[in-house]
Amino acid sequence: MLHSLFLNNQGERFSIYLMHSSITDVEIKDLQHYIGQYDNQLYEIYIDEDHFANAPSNMHYTKEMYYRLLAHKFLPEDIDRILYVDPDVLVINSIRKLYHMDISAYLFAAASRGMFSVKELNKIRFYPIEIEAYHNSGILLMNLERLRKEVSEESVFQFVEEYKSQLILPDQDVLNAMFSKQIKSIDEKIYNYDVRYFQYYKLTSKNEWDMDTVIKNTVFLHFCGKKKPWNKDYSGNFHSLYKHYENSALHQQRQ
Amino acid sequence: MLHSLFLNNQGERFSIYLMHSSITDVEIKDLQHYIGQYDNQLYEIYIDEDHFANAPSNMHYTKEMYYRLLAHKFLPEDIDRILYVDPDVLVINSIRKLYHMDISAYLFAAASRGMFSVKELNKIRFYPIEIEAYHNSGILLMNLERLRKEVSEESVFQFVEEYKSQLILPDQDVLNAMFSKQIKSIDEKIYNYDVRYFQYYKLTSKNEWDMDTVIKNTVFLHFCGKKKPWNKDYSGNFHSLYKHYENSALHQQRQ
Repeated sequence: MLHSLFLNNQGERFSIYLMHSSITDVEIKDLQHYIGQYDNQLYEIYIDEDHFANAPSNMHYTKEMYYRLLAHKFLPEDIDRILYVDPDVLVINSIRKLYHMDISAYLFAAASRGMFSVKELNKIRFYPIEIEAYHNSGILLMNLERLRKEVSEESVFQFVEEYKSQLILPDQDVLNAMFSKQIKSIDEKIYNYDVRYFQYYKLTSKNEWDMDTVIKNTVFLHFCGKKKPWNKDYSGNFHSLYKHYENSALHQQRQ
Repeated sequence: MLHSLFLNNQGERFSIYLMHSSITDVEIKDLQHYIGQYDNQLYEIYIDEDHFANAPSNMHYTKEMYYRLLAHKFLPEDIDRILYVDPDVLVINSIRKLYHMDISAYLFAAASRGMFSVKELNKIRFYPIEIEAYHNSGILLMNLERLRKEVSEESVFQFVEEYKSQLILPDQDVLNAMFSKQIKSIDEKIYNYDVRYFQYYKLTSKNEWDMDTVIKNTVFLHFCGKKKPWNKDYSGNFHSLYKHYENSALHQQRQ
């Protein structure tokens, strides 16, 4: 993910914030070295495992889900926005337009998933409010200023406690249920392209979104689902492209 | 093809020889500009349309087939070897090892196609000699010194005249039939990977040649067959990778 971000955004300088509670010093140093080769900077935010000791969690809803929902509590005060990106993503075009998008009236910008019928979702899940769109939490532009003012740890813990039996995809469901109306919807084909749905995107756009359009316009290719392109059993439309970036990243790292 | 060659062989300087009889000055200048951006050099070899006026040819066997078979007649005398590469190829790793291969005892190095049964080919086509392997002519390392001594225009024309009714793939069939024993066989999975046979290569190698191995080891990805990745109706395992290079080349060209 980082390698493709750097390669396809060569005019930009990045500050990478890594929140974790178990990555080793050796791994951090490796990452620091790699990121430094591009004149970018890594900032480590270590979260003590006890920090969320009293927050609701179990095997399926690990404490890491709060890293994303409560990032604004841990990031430096002088940052007013940040872009969260899942690790199973390739960044194949410039992120500039998204990063500078006006989100002053929202907490987040995220891509809504057209595949899912919101009407059906409202029927089967018991959200406290009816949702208007189902957003994927893999790419999230965060309005940190607003989040600091409006979203407390307590309110998130309370929500999870109340609805935990109904959460299927933990942080994503919380995001959609708690903040539905405060998320600016962005085009999933550009900002959160689910690689499993190449044919769906193509057919629903009258063939406009073919491979050519994707490669030229999509910013984030998201390898959603259980099968991941770094595993042996993977196959899919973007397998060769993923392996190309992986191979290129490993070469770079060895230098 | 050229863009991927340059990107993945950045330590090398290339002299590109372009043989043609109908490319316009504007197109040549564009290409020259593009090639110059990488500090490489284009040499144009213009072939007068009348040059092969008396050579056997028709709609299917155009005069351009002789460009490849008789390149040694047109290239500068001081070049002792050259690598011919089809335009429907991506060069995804270093060509160094192939280019410097010892071919002193051969006229050519080319990849043999394991898929085709030589036994069956010998039965259905009437080659003057039994062939031991069927080679693809899309990637050809030429031993120009030896070719100048051993292969005359007359011998090629005479051969085509005699066997033209049996030639299905013109230059490739001539190559295999005339020079069978003088071609050094190189591994097609490395030096002439037919992208249509991803599953075949994978299964016949006990899964060793999966996507990871291809991206790390294959030098030439060959988009054989009628369906080409620059056309609208294409699909295949390497479609996304092709479009990636295409997009990257178009960006570069605009600079």
